Amino acid sequence: MNEVYHFLIALVVILAAAKIFGEIAVRFGQSGIVGELLAGVIIGPGVLGLVSETPILTNISELGAIILLFEVGLSTDIKEFARAGGWATAVAFVGVMLPYFFGYFTFMYFGLSSTQSIFAGAVLTATSVGITARVFRDLKKLESEEAKIVLGAAVIDDVIGLAILAVVLKLVSGGTVTAGSIAQIAGTAVLFLALAIGAGLLIAPSIFKLVSKMKQENIVFVAGFAFCLLIAALSSKFGLAPIVGAFAAGLVLSSTKQGEEVKNGIKPLSAFFVPIFFVLMGTNVELGTFNPFVAGNGTILILTAVLFAVAFIGKTAAGFVVFKKGINKLLVGVSMVPRGEVGLIFAGIGLRNNVFGSNEYSALVAVIMLTTFVTPFILKYLMTKESQKKEIK
Amino acid sequence: MNEVYHFLIALVVILAAAKIFGEIAVRFGQSGIVGELLAGVIIGPGVLGLVSETPILTNISELGAIILLFEVGLSTDIKEFARAGGWATAVAFVGVMLPYFFGYFTFMYFGLSSTQSIFAGAVLTATSVGITARVFRDLKKLESEEAKIVLGAAVIDDVIGLAILAVVLKLVSGGTVTAGSIAQIAGTAVLFLALAIGAGLLIAPSIFKLVSKMKQENIVFVAGFAFCLLIAALSSKFGLAPIVGAFAAGLVLSSTKQGEEVKNGIKPLSAFFVPIFFVLMGTNVELGTFNPFVAGNGTILILTAVLFAVAFIGKTAAGFVVFKKGINKLLVGVSMVPRGEVGLIFAGIGLRNNVFGSNEYSALVAVIMLTTFVTPFILKYLMTKESQKKEIK
Repeated sequence: MNEVYHFLIALVVILAAAKIFGEIAVRFGQSGIVGELLAGVIIGPGVLGLVSETPILTNISELGAIILLFEVGLSTDIKEFARAGGWATAVAFVGVMLPYFFGYFTFMYFGLSSTQSIFAGAVLTATSVGITARVFRDLKKLESEEAKIVLGAAVIDDVIGLAILAVVLKLVSGGTVTAGSIAQIAGTAVLFLALAIGAGLLIAPSIFKLVSKMKQENIVFVAGFAFCLLIAALSSKFGLAPIVGAFAAGLVLSSTKQGEEVKNGIKPLSAFFVPIFFVLMGTNVELGTFNPFVAGNGTILILTAVLFAVAFIGKTAAGFVVFKKGINKLLVGVSMVPRGEVGLIFAGIGLRNNVFGSNEYSALVAVIMLTTFVTPFILKYLMTKESQKKEIK
Repeated sequence: MNEVYHFLIALVVILAAAKIFGEIAVRFGQSGIVGELLAGVIIGPGVLGLVSETPILTNISELGAIILLFEVGLSTDIKEFARAGGWATAVAFVGVMLPYFFGYFTFMYFGLSSTQSIFAGAVLTATSVGITARVFRDLKKLESEEAKIVLGAAVIDDVIGLAILAVVLKLVSGGTVTAGSIAQIAGTAVLFLALAIGAGLLIAPSIFKLVSKMKQENIVFVAGFAFCLLIAALSSKFGLAPIVGAFAAGLVLSSTKQGEEVKNGIKPLSAFFVPIFFVLMGTNVELGTFNPFVAGNGTILILTAVLFAVAFIGKTAAGFVVFKKGINKLLVGVSMVPRGEVGLIFAGIGLRNNVFGSNEYSALVAVIMLTTFVTPFILKYLMTKESQKKEIK
């Protein structure tokens, strides 16, 4: 009975901390994610020591990550890929490549191993669609051409990021780094995604038409979620991260008639599971890492600062590939800066597979938090300036 | 990664089997619970061997039981206790006492230990509100006086059943069976319930008024669920089953303005978690127990048959305490026969605490399934006969 008590109390503490700090973050115009990560830092072993990871909490937070990427997939219009057009694709590719290599070389420069550097690069690749979209929506710019490019690019760089993760994960689990092996793994990842999405798009509509005739409550939602878990399981069977499959499943379902119903059902599940994921991510951050008065921490602080700078510059520079007239290139670039769930999941996988120690992990999480923290202010400034310019004209 | 694969695939198999067998049961006019239990029997170690219990699945199914009783509490109008009136209370008490002692003496007669007999009696006490209500609704009799007595009594016997569970659980964990100890434990249980509900009713409205001003999505639902987990944790701290606290939390929230919102949010969670609970209950049933050609099984089959008979007669007899004119006493009694979630949870706790071996557990689950299986047919027959009688008059 005592075991059940500790499990339940841990859930209560995690949820309460997540929602309180999340609320504070939201009130200060920040993303709730920042608050939830902070909540984890504070209730974690480093500060209050109220909660530490247990196998069961790890499994629940894994479900949280799967649900999160499933939701991202469900919110992605598959036709957007096509509509996103050339500019979005170009921004996505450059916006993945630059931070990847910047991150890689920064880590190498600071004397970290090549595996760590490869993984660190991957953490910096994916833009968080959510934060970007919220700022555009807040400032009523969701219909602008810049927004369309940015949102398209953010979706595409998620997919590229997931493919990179597949490669990185295989390398970590004891592969050799040759051009051939990279090509093979990337090939598997792309093939799996293509097959899962292709077969899914063919089969899912008729399966879910059948399911929607069933008489049990919430049956469409449960079937959709089971479908997500199945594809996630298969993707882990193929050596890819489960979140890759979860994203593919969401993408497939978003194009069915029942997609909306699944999306509504997954929301309460997500409200329960996802904060547990972010809080546990936070509990692994060691605040002591950033204490400048501890000997040896100087290097980590500088590493964090440099990493943040290259993470910012890499994405911002990507905006300048759009050499089309009338587009605010700087706005496009800065909009791509916020990293979020995908980067955190990557960092977490790195920590769990002992690629990162707690220092490197803490630095990467801090960089992700800084990108989501700083960007909204800059974006608001840029958009207000632009509106004023247009008014003067 | 392989571990994640097995965890995810187990979830998929459980959900798919639950919903397919649940659908078949519903189509045959049965409760979905019967289908889900059968699904567990079939995919469990005894037949197909696709799924067996792991610590993580056990924890998830525990959450399922908590969510289930939280929902029962949320659906209970606390004022119904008062409105239920004397007849409902009388039916509830007699309907708890008779099956309790019938079950106890049956187990004793078959040579089982006194602890086992005490526990077996407890398993048979609680009527399943859901199944009873569904039959009344199907036959458009929810407004009849019989229905009101039955639904009131079903709620009251849940509460009595939970108090009995508290006593039984303490006895199992090494207490001595004296009148004094029973009174003490029952006192604790009643005191905890009274305090939790009393304090909850005082504090919850203002807390949830505050929560409803928060800006995060689904915040009211998450806060409500966290409240449920907290009271469940506290009740396990006091040596009561977590479901007792979950029920109390639901009861408290049902009287707040935010109760409806919490109820809507919990539904998708319940659609995911609760089938896992019922399926796992089913996987522990050993079908071989009921094979009449295996030596020694004769006794178990007879035990099951006798137990079913007394379970049926005990509740039916309770209907006859309503010596009010114009009430169909037989209908009231038979309506109380279906057992369900609470009985199953009790049986599962008995199995987990090594009170029951798989034989006794299987017999009890079979009895619960039989009560929900047989009753709808008899009820429909009784109600149709009554309508015809009234038409003749």
